Amino acid sequence: MNEIKLRLFEPIFYPKSIAVIGASPNKTKAGYIWVRALVNAGYKGEIYPVSPNGGEILGLKIYPNLQSIPGQVDYVLVSIPRQFILSLLDECTAKGVKVVTFFTAGFRETGDKVWKQAEAAMLAKARKGGFRIIGPNCLGVYSPECKLPLIEGAVGTPGEIGFISQSGGIAAKLISLGISYGINYSKGVSFGNGIDLDAVDFLEYLGADPKTRVIGLYIEGVKDGHRFFTIIKEIAKVKPLVIWKGGRTEAGTVIAASHTGSLTSSSVAWSTAIKQAGAIEVYNLEEFVDTLLLFQQISFWRGNNIAIITGLCGAGGGAAVSAADTCAQFSLNLPPLSYETKTKLMRLLGPIGSILHNPLDITPTLGSPSVLEKVMEIVIADPNIDLILVQEDVELILPYVNNKKQFQQLNNVFLNFAHKQNKPIIIVLPPGSAESDRLKLLNKLRQGGIAVFPSIARAAKAIANVHRYYSRRYE
Amino acid sequence: MNEIKLRLFEPIFYPKSIAVIGASPNKTKAGYIWVRALVNAGYKGEIYPVSPNGGEILGLKIYPNLQSIPGQVDYVLVSIPRQFILSLLDECTAKGVKVVTFFTAGFRETGDKVWKQAEAAMLAKARKGGFRIIGPNCLGVYSPECKLPLIEGAVGTPGEIGFISQSGGIAAKLISLGISYGINYSKGVSFGNGIDLDAVDFLEYLGADPKTRVIGLYIEGVKDGHRFFTIIKEIAKVKPLVIWKGGRTEAGTVIAASHTGSLTSSSVAWSTAIKQAGAIEVYNLEEFVDTLLLFQQISFWRGNNIAIITGLCGAGGGAAVSAADTCAQFSLNLPPLSYETKTKLMRLLGPIGSILHNPLDITPTLGSPSVLEKVMEIVIADPNIDLILVQEDVELILPYVNNKKQFQQLNNVFLNFAHKQNKPIIIVLPPGSAESDRLKLLNKLRQGGIAVFPSIARAAKAIANVHRYYSRRYE
Repeated sequence: MNEIKLRLFEPIFYPKSIAVIGASPNKTKAGYIWVRALVNAGYKGEIYPVSPNGGEILGLKIYPNLQSIPGQVDYVLVSIPRQFILSLLDECTAKGVKVVTFFTAGFRETGDKVWKQAEAAMLAKARKGGFRIIGPNCLGVYSPECKLPLIEGAVGTPGEIGFISQSGGIAAKLISLGISYGINYSKGVSFGNGIDLDAVDFLEYLGADPKTRVIGLYIEGVKDGHRFFTIIKEIAKVKPLVIWKGGRTEAGTVIAASHTGSLTSSSVAWSTAIKQAGAIEVYNLEEFVDTLLLFQQISFWRGNNIAIITGLCGAGGGAAVSAADTCAQFSLNLPPLSYETKTKLMRLLGPIGSILHNPLDITPTLGSPSVLEKVMEIVIADPNIDLILVQEDVELILPYVNNKKQFQQLNNVFLNFAHKQNKPIIIVLPPGSAESDRLKLLNKLRQGGIAVFPSIARAAKAIANVHRYYSRRYE
Repeated sequence: MNEIKLRLFEPIFYPKSIAVIGASPNKTKAGYIWVRALVNAGYKGEIYPVSPNGGEILGLKIYPNLQSIPGQVDYVLVSIPRQFILSLLDECTAKGVKVVTFFTAGFRETGDKVWKQAEAAMLAKARKGGFRIIGPNCLGVYSPECKLPLIEGAVGTPGEIGFISQSGGIAAKLISLGISYGINYSKGVSFGNGIDLDAVDFLEYLGADPKTRVIGLYIEGVKDGHRFFTIIKEIAKVKPLVIWKGGRTEAGTVIAASHTGSLTSSSVAWSTAIKQAGAIEVYNLEEFVDTLLLFQQISFWRGNNIAIITGLCGAGGGAAVSAADTCAQFSLNLPPLSYETKTKLMRLLGPIGSILHNPLDITPTLGSPSVLEKVMEIVIADPNIDLILVQEDVELILPYVNNKKQFQQLNNVFLNFAHKQNKPIIIVLPPGSAESDRLKLLNKLRQGGIAVFPSIARAAKAIANVHRYYSRRYE
């Protein structure tokens, strides 16, 4: 069953050739931008621009129609006005294409009955012609393995996170934030009005896809609630599934209807069903990407006992107080450090300027890599602790270290411990006035496999979500 | 009364000379870093390093003691171990100094009775000697007008926001985030254990200070609750007062006791009292700086009707849906656009790809500065709307504009409208994969006087806070 599904979706996520309908040499037209995006991304298959006006784009011949393309066409990307759609679909049938993605919008979401009926006609042609439709009113597929972009200029490293988004804009943000945060996607899709393939189909596919270990879903509404909740329950048993529901409020619901023509139901019903299914609900873009990032970095984690460390070079007291408040708010467990741990830390750091609780303010370390290494050793050895969360305020550290080398050595302590033992280490690097040093460090830590967040609050939410998933799955 | 207070605090915030006790030519010592911080900041008064070992720091003579300094000493910054403090204070009396700030820690916050008593002895000496104490266990004063830094490397432009922070680390973050966000401070102070001058004294001063229009306070505990709530009530009548209480939770309370020796009371009692006083309570660093920033940018605003615009170059639907959800969550009012506004927008944008509601998705604008200008004109003219919030996703816009000039022209539309009419324009620039272009734009918008936030949620919280203050003050 799974193998059939994987084969069926092969031309969607690994198309060998793409025709862009509505291609244009005019650089301001979407049909030009789609071709340029494919070329610049280095898409690995054949690209066939199509337009009755002929000509050339970026050295590629523009074919007058699908029929005149010499080879097989797997994937058709449509960027022509809605009134020309139906006759195009006849051409698709004749050419034997596998999937048609509609960038073209202006259907059900306009609220106009005529264009809602057009969707039904499109679907009928797809069924008869033996091809599938993605959209209309969407940005289609993202497949980093074959360098197929969803928006121009953004193809990241292939990885294990799959996403499904009803909204093209949210899909684009997931990709672009993924690139800057180090979230590596196996594949992703935005399906807009979803008249044929929709969330349930893509969920079934990503659930079966061996390359996808974690799934993120942005959804505004579903056609068949029962089928939807059955599939998310099945998937959540084997893969972390993170769901962001757009249109949770009355105001959001009105906009969702105009966006993807979705009729949404009560947010309480949704939240209950998502929870019962064992999936994780998130409430905004930041929490969505933070949670996906942490699922990527921590593949299995059942603990719930966190130690927080602040004040690498002093001034960690306020950060410790607010970290404690924040973790309490998200019901994270900051257990007392063991008696042995406290005794060792007292001997190492002394009572002045340090807070030997949890959060632990290690101000007397004052930037010494060797003292920091001992602190980490002691805390990691504490049997009460499952995960270590460190807040580094780069602009407060830099005045206390003698040179960039010492700053690197401090951070190498975290990178080394991240690899030589099993308790996850997560780092919070809040923005400040030393942004270029901070961003360099952030990249280094991420490349070293450490999850980095901009605030304790965002880290805490992601940790709570990951913990909730694994504790439920293995309860 | 106010003039007396202002004169009394003159040597604290505008000292003509500073002695650094514990100065050292050893670059790893705090006493060296304090001198270097003053020199590098370009502090406008005299700097006198003091240490019995003599020598030189950065071309400045190190005096063996306070007595040997030729001129008057207004401000003494203490960075020597706690056991030498009391005899130093006798020297301060003899020299006739005005204020002593203790970077030195290890007193009440250690929980040790001996060092709690030392605080009482210090205070007695200050009363007898006629000088004031800031701290101990603090980073002291920030005064951008006279280039007096609180941490090294961070002196921003003088402005109208004053802050008071019990924590040095939080004070340092306020300054460094202020520099990167464009929050300009009149002055600020961190007072640690606050054995003499504390939150109430500094509140009275900043309340009277004509250069301070808005006040931010981070506090872990107060000595005299009645006096504290009386003064915040008085101040909130005339100046926006934003309060972040550290140690709101049981966990945070324990840490606060170890941090600044604060005994805190129930967070519900605090929240109620802050609300009754007409001040604005915030719950984390991000909300604190966002709210201060917005109070700086919007000096008077009574409206509550917001229009949100997304999709400058397409893909604004998901952003519109989630903006609606977020604003509903923070009880912001997104009223329907007027019939006239909708009609004009329909004529300009058409029904396809746009969402002609509020939030308004202007996808068909597709990066045209002239169409955007018309959209802004129409929305600003709507009598239902008091404030316009625009989300720009830079990495989604760049592929659709032909060059950087067009990108600038798009943003000039906002900069122009921000100056030529009175409805506030706020811009949300979420992070993504085009960070260098985004940061350039962010600086340009901020320099143009527009408040910029990284997410609709953060903008919405700040707007709700500012609205709450002004609607209460003028109800």
